[in-house]
Amino acid sequence: MTGFQPLKPDPELDLVLERTVDVPRELVWKAWTTREHLMKWFTPVPWKTVDCEIDLRPGGIFRTTMRSPEGEEFPNTGCYLEVIENEKLTWTSALEPGFRPSTADPGPVGYFTAVISLEPHGEGTRYTATAIHTDVASRKAHEEMGFHDGWGKALDQLVEVVKKEMHGRAFIRARGRQ
Amino acid sequence: MTGFQPLKPDPELDLVLERTVDVPRELVWKAWTTREHLMKWFTPVPWKTVDCEIDLRPGGIFRTTMRSPEGEEFPNTGCYLEVIENEKLTWTSALEPGFRPSTADPGPVGYFTAVISLEPHGEGTRYTATAIHTDVASRKAHEEMGFHDGWGKALDQLVEVVKKEMHGRAFIRARGRQ
Repeated sequence: MTGFQPLKPDPELDLVLERTVDVPRELVWKAWTTREHLMKWFTPVPWKTVDCEIDLRPGGIFRTTMRSPEGEEFPNTGCYLEVIENEKLTWTSALEPGFRPSTADPGPVGYFTAVISLEPHGEGTRYTATAIHTDVASRKAHEEMGFHDGWGKALDQLVEVVKKEMHGRAFIRARGRQ
Repeated sequence: MTGFQPLKPDPELDLVLERTVDVPRELVWKAWTTREHLMKWFTPVPWKTVDCEIDLRPGGIFRTTMRSPEGEEFPNTGCYLEVIENEKLTWTSALEPGFRPSTADPGPVGYFTAVISLEPHGEGTRYTATAIHTDVASRKAHEEMGFHDGWGKALDQLVEVVKKEMHGRAFIRARGRQ
């Protein structure tokens, strides 16, 4: 009831990717919360996101399927916890949709909770992605799997997709004026 | 973003206690969300609730310590997921405060999520408590530990505490008119 509180990551347990990007936060939000958009950028190439399900409410499903260059598929199912439009998106792999505790094997990283925080920064966005782990070993495993590189590359792809869309819109507007 | 959706329990995995009680839902809500009130009714006698911490927001702590008649103490730490005043209170033992996935040993019941739903019913309240488990074995273990009896007795105690408070208030009002 006391509302949105700033996140204080624990450096022993959490991983943080913080960047400023030159696209507006409404479009970053849209890229994270719309199936068609997310599938275009979510997985660093040459991996692909081949399926995605988004039910954007606390308790709703967030499911993605990633495909390796060799064609192996890796489904992930999580549950949204916080959906604060254009500001904060939180989900966890520790719960299935409807807040049911998960029994899926979480692999070496273990269950984790992810928080995407967006703040306006001039015409752009201050972007903070935080991964919250159970213990030091999980945090280290995620770090060694390439958290910073992977989430950073995905963000680059997100920005590229958003810019293409912005240019597309500008083109349509320009044509409309002809 | 689509807001509050009704819960559809799975009879294989979930346990439900549904009752109508003759106290207003605002006071049932208060009994569930205020430390001083909760400690008076939360644990069926002769057990006691000897400590409680409530940070009433999604991600906030919900911690209680129960003491057996023999003096053994059982602490439980959970995390609130949904806090919709006078309507719905959801928390889970699968997450620690700040949405961090838990590593605490959950015992035979396993991790579970609990939902308290309140609807007005005349001057009283339609009260629904749902416990959401990972699998059939967890649901059965919770049932055999006496879910219906335990949660039912606790609700009786809650109603008693609320009524005492209502009579206290009426007494104070009556004195004020003398």
